[in-house]
Amino acid sequence: MKTSQKHTWKTKLHEIIYEADTPEGKLFDIVLLIAILASIILVMLESIESFDQKYHDFLNVSEWVITILFTIEYILRIVTVNKPIKYILSFYGIIDLLSTIPKYLSLFFVGSQALVALRALRLLRVFRILKLARYLGASNQLANAIKASRAKISVFLFAVLIASVIFGTIMYLVEGADSGFTNIPKSVYWCIVTMTTVGFGDIAPITPLGQFIAAVIMIMGYGIIAVPTGIVSAEYTKSAGKTQNPKKEDETKLKTVTLNTQCCANCFAQKHQDDAEYCHKCGCKLRYD
Amino acid sequence: MKTSQKHTWKTKLHEIIYEADTPEGKLFDIVLLIAILASIILVMLESIESFDQKYHDFLNVSEWVITILFTIEYILRIVTVNKPIKYILSFYGIIDLLSTIPKYLSLFFVGSQALVALRALRLLRVFRILKLARYLGASNQLANAIKASRAKISVFLFAVLIASVIFGTIMYLVEGADSGFTNIPKSVYWCIVTMTTVGFGDIAPITPLGQFIAAVIMIMGYGIIAVPTGIVSAEYTKSAGKTQNPKKEDETKLKTVTLNTQCCANCFAQKHQDDAEYCHKCGCKLRYD
Amino acid sequence: MKTSQKHTWKTKLHEIIYEADTPEGKLFDIVLLIAILASIILVMLESIESFDQKYHDFLNVSEWVITILFTIEYILRIVTVNKPIKYILSFYGIIDLLSTIPKYLSLFFVGSQALVALRALRLLRVFRILKLARYLGASNQLANAIKASRAKISVFLFAVLIASVIFGTIMYLVEGADSGFTNIPKSVYWCIVTMTTVGFGDIAPITPLGQFIAAVIMIMGYGIIAVPTGIVSAEYTKSAGKTQNPKKEDETKLKTVTLNTQCCANCFAQKHQDDAEYCHKCGCKLRYD
Amino acid sequence: MKTSQKHTWKTKLHEIIYEADTPEGKLFDIVLLIAILASIILVMLESIESFDQKYHDFLNVSEWVITILFTIEYILRIVTVNKPIKYILSFYGIIDLLSTIPKYLSLFFVGSQALVALRALRLLRVFRILKLARYLGASNQLANAIKASRAKISVFLFAVLIASVIFGTIMYLVEGADSGFTNIPKSVYWCIVTMTTVGFGDIAPITPLGQFIAAVIMIMGYGIIAVPTGIVSAEYTKSAGKTQNPKKEDETKLKTVTLNTQCCANCFAQKHQDDAEYCHKCGCKLRYD
Repeated sequence: MKTSQKHTWKTKLHEIIYEADTPEGKLFDIVLLIAILASIILVMLESIESFDQKYHDFLNVSEWVITILFTIEYILRIVTVNKPIKYILSFYGIIDLLSTIPKYLSLFFVGSQALVALRALRLLRVFRILKLARYLGASNQLANAIKASRAKISVFLFAVLIASVIFGTIMYLVEGADSGFTNIPKSVYWCIVTMTTVGFGDIAPITPLGQFIAAVIMIMGYGIIAVPTGIVSAEYTKSAGKTQNPKKEDETKLKTVTLNTQCCANCFAQKHQDDAEYCHKCGCKLRYD
Repeated sequence: MKTSQKHTWKTKLHEIIYEADTPEGKLFDIVLLIAILASIILVMLESIESFDQKYHDFLNVSEWVITILFTIEYILRIVTVNKPIKYILSFYGIIDLLSTIPKYLSLFFVGSQALVALRALRLLRVFRILKLARYLGASNQLANAIKASRAKISVFLFAVLIASVIFGTIMYLVEGADSGFTNIPKSVYWCIVTMTTVGFGDIAPITPLGQFIAAVIMIMGYGIIAVPTGIVSAEYTKSAGKTQNPKKEDETKLKTVTLNTQCCANCFAQKHQDDAEYCHKCGCKLRYD
Repeated sequence: MKTSQKHTWKTKLHEIIYEADTPEGKLFDIVLLIAILASIILVMLESIESFDQKYHDFLNVSEWVITILFTIEYILRIVTVNKPIKYILSFYGIIDLLSTIPKYLSLFFVGSQALVALRALRLLRVFRILKLARYLGASNQLANAIKASRAKISVFLFAVLIASVIFGTIMYLVEGADSGFTNIPKSVYWCIVTMTTVGFGDIAPITPLGQFIAAVIMIMGYGIIAVPTGIVSAEYTKSAGKTQNPKKEDETKLKTVTLNTQCCANCFAQKHQDDAEYCHKCGCKLRYD
Repeated sequence: MKTSQKHTWKTKLHEIIYEADTPEGKLFDIVLLIAILASIILVMLESIESFDQKYHDFLNVSEWVITILFTIEYILRIVTVNKPIKYILSFYGIIDLLSTIPKYLSLFFVGSQALVALRALRLLRVFRILKLARYLGASNQLANAIKASRAKISVFLFAVLIASVIFGTIMYLVEGADSGFTNIPKSVYWCIVTMTTVGFGDIAPITPLGQFIAAVIMIMGYGIIAVPTGIVSAEYTKSAGKTQNPKKEDETKLKTVTLNTQCCANCFAQKHQDDAEYCHKCGCKLRYD
């Protein structure tokens, strides 16, 4: 599909919508971000009853305006891309759809409206727009550390869950319904609340034995909280060490790569080099100059 | 006892029950896991009164079915092993027994039923079945880090306990019974709740002096929480460093060891090498092929 | 403006007020600190109704005395400096003004009085007075570690906020108004309370599904708390390592720099070397000996 | 005062009471520990009203027995030492006195009884008795890490306090008395409770603005908790690294030093080498053999 696309409206629109290198593209992204933030705030305000009663019409109209804008944006995103199916099934494609339809669904179903909060996920786009290589690097490093410690944290959370089930059952037997431990799932819930040191206090042991076991659980949880922290810390130190040593050579390359917001119209591959002419994934032509 | 066992039903069963290298062994372990999970969920649902009233008979029958399955499994585990006593007294042997008998005991005693939650411990078997060397390695590394920092964390928890006793008594003297500090054990309990940053709020100081001391305890606890975290973090970094450096040579060996689920029928030793013919602990023949 | 200033009262006062190298300068700073602490305690006591009723006149008069002292100090600071505008617009200049005017404003507006708590920020001056190179070094190292991990922690807090918005909306839908989740902003607030493991318990889920989601949020938050800790820990290890290695040569220099409290009368530049005769920023003469 | 003391009852007693190398010394220390633990438990039980009413006489008599034993021990400690004044004014001397007199004071003053909880501090002696070089080493390493990070953690806690005062005052202005923020000290207390992620919930913001500020405080506190942890972690890694490298030579020496419980009868210096004949502090003869 290596057609030599000319400066048609389609390619121009693709540049504006998917990229942030041109002034128009930057403007589009900033307007989009403001629209997303505005729509989240609108949904929040709508959920406050006293506010909704006063300004119901204003909120409703604003919601519809933003939803229609999002619908137009969604359609344009599909139109300007070579393989619409690929976009529709991509992570952002699904998020974009899910953040648009709730308002339409609210015509038929009550409550679906609140799904609009999914629009918050669209905010993740902010990182691309801000073009802050520094922040992107930071988030990459973070992602690597979390990735590397995923297996260990899973093992750890699994152990916490097993401990919660066992201690939850013991607390259910010891405390009984008087102090809120009315059934085992609730006791397990309380146990998780306690081990994670959240401690709501909606349920709390009142018998001496229950309080003693609770103290044991807390001290155990206190010791346990050290484990995932230590893991991430160690992994992060490792990954930070790795990126630090080969710094001199890679830094320039790294920056040029992350600073470019080009997005292939064919396969959505990103992170192209600044002087790239063809997509490094599918070979489709990139720049239309 | 190095008898050359042939493909009798006993050796075949041993392979299925204790190992997860053959398709039958894998299937058995997966079915076992599902049964364990199902039984835990059943006990939880039974403890919810409204649910129990509706589906009491269904829950009871399901419980009995699973208990009988576990009983059969327990008997088979004893039968297929060369030294049954050793299995019965092993960690998993005791857990298996304890997770089977509560239902039988419930015929005589009310409440013993809930001990079934101990079955959660059987879930630890999941790691063997998943055969995820990655996860096993992670859990080994974790275990090492925790082992290495055990002594230090003990010293630390001991200090926390002494501080809790002293501050608990002070709070008892300062606050008195009005705000829930009715006796010293309860005050010590509150002190542990506060120092571990759980903070239920079922007991909370109301006098200015009590609140001041509470603030001191909290800030102290805030500084203290750093200690065990720092310890585990440092130990983990060390142990991760150790396993990282001699990586090239040991990695292959490490993986083959942890991936093998062979279990000696004589002494339950695990972690055999893939090409092992005899148990590395007792010399008993391993593979029956 | 390199006028050769003689031992006029102005230069003498500048030395006393802005520096802590002479006995008079030290005394001035200690008196200032005591006055700041006293004024903060006074405002606190005034806010306690029972205390205010008894000692209202004493508190009021003391407040006025301290305020007038601060006013004089503020005027002297402006007078003894070459470029008053620069001081007035500096961080400490604004803090000094804001900590002086509330009492005057309280003549016209009720409540503005409490702004006096901003005086707490003036306490930051304590570090200069104590002249503890050890503490200054510690705080510099801290500042560096925090600076280096700022970008990463921002990314992380941004992710926490997005997660809070999404989970807050879900909890609003699941729980409803009965358990305190009356609107989305409140749900988001609850979500932040929970993810940061604070857990007030003023709002707490009561439906089984709500409690299940809460447990997921908590365990997630428990895993997440590891991330910024790991980042700071790693950055701090790095920055500590850097300052440790080139220790032999730099230590002397470092100490002389941080121990000197000279402050240029022209541009407020600090951290002069002990034998400096001219400001290293603007070239204005420093020592008047 | 280098008198060549013979095997008199005084030197024998000194060996038994102050050291744990002989069987009698060990026995004495174990009996002492049990007595301390028993007395702490007695005081705790006494504070439980229902328990005290039933067994008041038994508790009272047991208390007196233990107090008299402690009195005898205290007198013997004074008698068997060359310079009694030095012992009386030492840390343990004061603790020993404070843990003995409350019972006598309770004859005259009500309530002084509960000071007996100070006896918990005597439990710190357990480390000497257990003679666990492993634990002592661990506690030394811990102490070093905490010592090294003391300055940094002080800076940090100081910052937390200033932030608490400022945010506490803001919350007092925003929330007012309705939600429990009745005065500034209470607001500051709430702020510390929140920043340390304890979160009792006895005071909680109810206005939207108050909840927003609370969310900001929490997220800030969430980021802040990372700092002291990172510091201790980094310091501990450093100190662990130091003790690890020169291990080969120093380990033997280290162990012999920490394993010896000799205590100079003249100046209370500890940590003597196993073959030491004279105190390394005052030159007084050590072993009486």
